[in-house]
Amino acid sequence: MVEESGGLDALETPCLLLDSDRLKANVAAMRARLDGLGVVLRPHLKTAKSRDVARIAMASEAGPATVSTLREAEYFAEGGVRDLIYAVGIAPQKLERVGRIRRAWRTDLAIILDSVEQAQAVADWSRRNGDRLPVLIEVDADGHRSGVTPQDSARLVAIGRVLAEGASLRGVLLHAGDSYGLSDPGALRAAAEAERTAAVTAAATLRDAGLPCPVVSVGSTPTARYADRLDGITEVRAGVFMIGDLFQAGVGSCAVDDIALTVLATVIGHQREKGWIITDAGWMALSRDRGTARQAVDQGYGVACDRAGRPYPDLIVRDANQEHGILAVRTGSAAALPDLPVGARLRILPNHACATGAQHDRYHEIAGGHLTGAVWPRINGW
Amino acid sequence: MVEESGGLDALETPCLLLDSDRLKANVAAMRARLDGLGVVLRPHLKTAKSRDVARIAMASEAGPATVSTLREAEYFAEGGVRDLIYAVGIAPQKLERVGRIRRAWRTDLAIILDSVEQAQAVADWSRRNGDRLPVLIEVDADGHRSGVTPQDSARLVAIGRVLAEGASLRGVLLHAGDSYGLSDPGALRAAAEAERTAAVTAAATLRDAGLPCPVVSVGSTPTARYADRLDGITEVRAGVFMIGDLFQAGVGSCAVDDIALTVLATVIGHQREKGWIITDAGWMALSRDRGTARQAVDQGYGVACDRAGRPYPDLIVRDANQEHGILAVRTGSAAALPDLPVGARLRILPNHACATGAQHDRYHEIAGGHLTGAVWPRINGW
Repeated sequence: MVEESGGLDALETPCLLLDSDRLKANVAAMRARLDGLGVVLRPHLKTAKSRDVARIAMASEAGPATVSTLREAEYFAEGGVRDLIYAVGIAPQKLERVGRIRRAWRTDLAIILDSVEQAQAVADWSRRNGDRLPVLIEVDADGHRSGVTPQDSARLVAIGRVLAEGASLRGVLLHAGDSYGLSDPGALRAAAEAERTAAVTAAATLRDAGLPCPVVSVGSTPTARYADRLDGITEVRAGVFMIGDLFQAGVGSCAVDDIALTVLATVIGHQREKGWIITDAGWMALSRDRGTARQAVDQGYGVACDRAGRPYPDLIVRDANQEHGILAVRTGSAAALPDLPVGARLRILPNHACATGAQHDRYHEIAGGHLTGAVWPRINGW
Repeated sequence: MVEESGGLDALETPCLLLDSDRLKANVAAMRARLDGLGVVLRPHLKTAKSRDVARIAMASEAGPATVSTLREAEYFAEGGVRDLIYAVGIAPQKLERVGRIRRAWRTDLAIILDSVEQAQAVADWSRRNGDRLPVLIEVDADGHRSGVTPQDSARLVAIGRVLAEGASLRGVLLHAGDSYGLSDPGALRAAAEAERTAAVTAAATLRDAGLPCPVVSVGSTPTARYADRLDGITEVRAGVFMIGDLFQAGVGSCAVDDIALTVLATVIGHQREKGWIITDAGWMALSRDRGTARQAVDQGYGVACDRAGRPYPDLIVRDANQEHGILAVRTGSAAALPDLPVGARLRILPNHACATGAQHDRYHEIAGGHLTGAVWPRINGW
């Protein structure tokens, strides 16, 4: 790896560094994998929330893509994306804003829901506004959160009929969120197959009732990474795969060396008797996410790396306050604490790219091991 | 309590509601308490990061106040605050920006440090720039993170001499961060007294060596709330007290009814068989903070309240995904799930006001139980 050229010293810390070589490699690998399985990638843009990243992740500047907020839908539609799914259950109050986005940027923004009452609200809105909103029925892949169970044919068909009559029934959508709790490759393959089966079952139920179901959309980074086959699926939504993080490395969805995001930090003190190095990257910069605490290897608030992004042996962010990160060698390790004086710069690999990214408003691009000087804005909020 | 007037329905969710009656009462109570103890309140603005809130919390529009980032220092200095401490250990690279803030807004921005090497860097910078930077030596109250131990007279005096000669030695500063882990009033009183004793000891060490120590600054919300006496202390920095949160209620620093901040959310679905209500306030809106998991009462990701801010019996955010909150009745409770259809609005009390606030860019003010229509911007970032 090429050493960075010193540009890191000019940045205010804490800030985000995004390695676009890794980002591009992660996208290429996922695209090749899904091409081989015969499905379209509809990347979820909720991790990066950046048009620059979206352009790398999407098949074309027009999409397709997935978003988690209407603010993202506006931002990406304004940036030229024309094919979006807002993949969080719709509330009736949000339909006006959905309609505005569809009109303002002629964007095919689809929504999701899992109840007859929501379907009725969407059908009513569609009739009143002369815009048949495209809707996917959310199906519950694994009991993780929302969705109609695939066995509940009566509810699926009831929702489908309301939508087909009063709006536009586009298909079914699932997210195998429980796969985040796995780490065994066999179990991950089984979770992917369960997600596929649930999707295909729900789609068949609609079609058997004479209803359309052109889109069969599944997706989570772990199941996208481990699916053996995706027969009957038309598209995969996955997002965090493009950046990666320590949690996904713990699941087995990526390697630590694939992680494209780090937080640049500066040493601001020491407690030498305790073996602590204090930095200016606390939980405000890293996020409060402690997802790795439930995994085989607890990474604290993140793994400390040198300026080139190479992890220091067993050096983690053992604790964090709002603007202080406390680095220490992992309990039980004999690794030496690196000699990092006040003012030294280092990089922290995040537990959860979605959460860490959201604490910041921009990325500094690294390519070929150097800062390129490019700053990629990102959005937050709703 | 007065029911809100329906204005809540016009807001996009999730968003922050800030009850300015509670905010003002919390500030008045802390001010009365510290007046009685004969010390100045230097409120920490890191929780709210809002000029509107700062004006309520500060003794005057000019301050004094405390900040956790230089971005906050710039924002508040530009807003008229003239007396600030940046209460995170300084890195040499940040001195230029400190100097710019002091010049641009004629603001008395002081910094903190805990090593001779930092003191030397500050003295060098002060000499080169003809601006003797005011510095407080950070003293370690309780082994929580940074600071010189109060017993380490040699280091305290060595730092003090460098600063007195080359910069401006303003005093000592402590933060009893370990008090956050307590909940017994006796232990909290003891932590406050330990913080006071450490401060007074360090100040005496400097004075005995012929060095100045005009400012003796302590502060954390729990110790500010429980200190019996503050003899020898000149000022108290506390921040989260003005807003409060479930974590501070768990410590005993406030009551649940004192909490001024809620996240307004909308119901987006149900899993009725499981007793779940799904809302659009996930961890992105609430933050990933799970601090109450370590306390006697685990509040999940927050406590669900009705539109008027009254907690539903035992209804908590049991789990959260990025844009989904899963409400369920606390395990073991016989409370009934409230009947909240899709589209219903509710409010979530946060675990940690600093973390939840940081996920948003504005507050909607509530006073007298009604939305006032005022929107108070807040900042984030560095």
